[in-house]
Amino acid sequence: MKLEVVTIGTELLLGAALDTNALDLGTALAAAGIDVTRRTTVSDKPAAVADAVRGALERTGAALTTGGLGPTRDDLTKQAVAGLFGRPLVLDEGVLRHIEERFRRFGRKMTPSNRVQAEIPQGAVVLPNPRGTAPGIWLEDDAGRLVIMLPGVPVEMRGLLVEQVLPRLVTRALAQDGAPVVVRSRTVRTTGVPESALAERIAAIEDALGPLTLAYLPSIAGVDLRLTAWEMPPDQADRLLGEAAARLQRELGDRAYGEESTDLAGVVLDLLRKSGRKLTVAESCTGGMLGARLTSIPGSSDVFVGGVIAYADDVKTGMLDVPRATLEQHGAVSEQTVRAMAEGAARRFGVDCALAVTGIAGPGGGSPEKPVGTVWIAARRGSETRALQRQFLGERDEIRARSAQAALALLRLALVEA
Amino acid sequence: MKLEVVTIGTELLLGAALDTNALDLGTALAAAGIDVTRRTTVSDKPAAVADAVRGALERTGAALTTGGLGPTRDDLTKQAVAGLFGRPLVLDEGVLRHIEERFRRFGRKMTPSNRVQAEIPQGAVVLPNPRGTAPGIWLEDDAGRLVIMLPGVPVEMRGLLVEQVLPRLVTRALAQDGAPVVVRSRTVRTTGVPESALAERIAAIEDALGPLTLAYLPSIAGVDLRLTAWEMPPDQADRLLGEAAARLQRELGDRAYGEESTDLAGVVLDLLRKSGRKLTVAESCTGGMLGARLTSIPGSSDVFVGGVIAYADDVKTGMLDVPRATLEQHGAVSEQTVRAMAEGAARRFGVDCALAVTGIAGPGGGSPEKPVGTVWIAARRGSETRALQRQFLGERDEIRARSAQAALALLRLALVEA
Repeated sequence: MKLEVVTIGTELLLGAALDTNALDLGTALAAAGIDVTRRTTVSDKPAAVADAVRGALERTGAALTTGGLGPTRDDLTKQAVAGLFGRPLVLDEGVLRHIEERFRRFGRKMTPSNRVQAEIPQGAVVLPNPRGTAPGIWLEDDAGRLVIMLPGVPVEMRGLLVEQVLPRLVTRALAQDGAPVVVRSRTVRTTGVPESALAERIAAIEDALGPLTLAYLPSIAGVDLRLTAWEMPPDQADRLLGEAAARLQRELGDRAYGEESTDLAGVVLDLLRKSGRKLTVAESCTGGMLGARLTSIPGSSDVFVGGVIAYADDVKTGMLDVPRATLEQHGAVSEQTVRAMAEGAARRFGVDCALAVTGIAGPGGGSPEKPVGTVWIAARRGSETRALQRQFLGERDEIRARSAQAALALLRLALVEA
Repeated sequence: MKLEVVTIGTELLLGAALDTNALDLGTALAAAGIDVTRRTTVSDKPAAVADAVRGALERTGAALTTGGLGPTRDDLTKQAVAGLFGRPLVLDEGVLRHIEERFRRFGRKMTPSNRVQAEIPQGAVVLPNPRGTAPGIWLEDDAGRLVIMLPGVPVEMRGLLVEQVLPRLVTRALAQDGAPVVVRSRTVRTTGVPESALAERIAAIEDALGPLTLAYLPSIAGVDLRLTAWEMPPDQADRLLGEAAARLQRELGDRAYGEESTDLAGVVLDLLRKSGRKLTVAESCTGGMLGARLTSIPGSSDVFVGGVIAYADDVKTGMLDVPRATLEQHGAVSEQTVRAMAEGAARRFGVDCALAVTGIAGPGGGSPEKPVGTVWIAARRGSETRALQRQFLGERDEIRARSAQAALALLRLALVEA
């Protein structure tokens, strides 16, 4: 089944807002086997909306719109689409009660324009929206033309899409086309290994992954490997993706730390929790990013006790007991200093694991011997401290984020190899 | 001058990538007075590209495409557009030399498919791309039809847009329509004041802002006030926006902390630098976010010495000298504790300013007396400590980010009111 997406909103054309709905719609519809052949963004003028929806119906017979269902004068999607179908708008008592109920609950006064949100093209199906006032609308005619109208607010759009639209679309596509073919992806996450080294390692099995495709997606977190199954039955797609992901994980061993959106900080916390260890951090150039990453995970307080942001040298000596002689002889960005930071933090906080980072994040502070991007990281587990130097490229915050990720990766390896 | 944007890439329809180009193009074209009436996203099939560009030309006479200029078989934008114009593709020697030069410089081997990137529709103007191999292409015919083709890689697209496309488009629009009318915006940033209270405060001057519109944009950082000048000459737009922004700033006084993308952390660092003060932080629920915010600003080491991430109670007592009796009597999330954290940090680090945060970020840890979202913040300046409680809504990381912002806002007020 083919379908076009029509996104309505002058602010989207003016670049005043990023169209995150496009991403969510694209992934969800492709994974359900709906072929989105075009996405059109138009202003909220009724003629522009009607023209875009008319084009979509002519090409594919089906359109999904987002936006233009609000209570203001700019919100004219329903009028434009009802016009195309030659249907009047009629008040839906159920929707009206839902809107009145919401206003009562939030203690706000309902205006006549909110009443307009309860008007629905005659014969359309109302898709209840528990997250907002405007319902979704499913409008289909005898000629098989279909327009699905959803609100543009992302959380409302996503809720209606998953709960109301996808089940209906899948049923409809099944009746229309028989068994669907879908596009689905699965991602294996790696960190600390350059793309070229990953490619060499995977080369031997890459041919065997077909008919799946493999994309290398480098980011600050590392290189994600995205496997995609193109246009095949859902069962087959899921089976092939499962086998290929397992195969990649076996081939990569410790280099792969998880799948999909797994956060390396969460992986490290789980490993620590399982082995009954506690963690502290000593951060110079990352300035709190490591702590922020770790404490972003709910329940991290089981394992993470806190740490020191040791930005100034006096803090490295005063709060982490880094010997002043070490700083003077080797500098703040050195193996000796980062080891002393990790060891000092573990001792001060009375825990058996510590991470330390010190480096030159730029734009200033670099030298020929230690250019911007030079970073030393250390991971202490029990009585053993591993340290390594990395040389990162990029802007200040990129270097910092890569440093935090590299520190977590170093501790993870120390924990899994133990 | 009207124009449609056509974005080319199967991955954009599948939701595999967020279309950030759309945002950059929308803002830049509107600010230059080009009226983007529609944006269409299609797969990289030549028929789909040709159909979308043909539609754009029929409606407006001008299309700007992004994507499909790479070296692979999927990249067929030039072929599709050249076909529409009835022009052959011809090898451009200048572009070829540029591509060869790039490959030499990066020590990579050039393939025959890279040579294809040097082919240009006959009669088109090459827009040199110093950031990549594929140049931009400006193709115009005697009938006044215009297609501008840009690569999809964001950094290359933005560079070509600003350096090559906008100057040409503005000149063309000037010749075609006379003096342009533009859509431009300016944003005044506020924090710590609810939208409704802002609206009340501004009500008196809101009518006087016309013909500009004023939008309230709430985010984790606070409420941004976006002034927009719609379709007026650039001089008039800039003058009205300047006057209105100044008027808003006057009306809001200390509540406004800057314009456009000003970071409150940078504002606080500047105030500290000017008054010769140094800052430390004591973070419980924010876990390092405040430090990360502050150290994200280049040059922050002048002012920010570091701090303690005091996640566990033992760290609050051991590293910040919070009396155990205070924790036992009042709890970790209390005015007494947050004051003791700020005072302990200032003393331990030997500085005159400190920020402290302690709260319940959730999802667990809430109680009827102290529900999730209860946060105490303190700002110490010299010998004075201000503390206040906030009650935030949202997910864990939202509560944490709002807490960090509120702490910075509290210190800013302490510094400007001093």
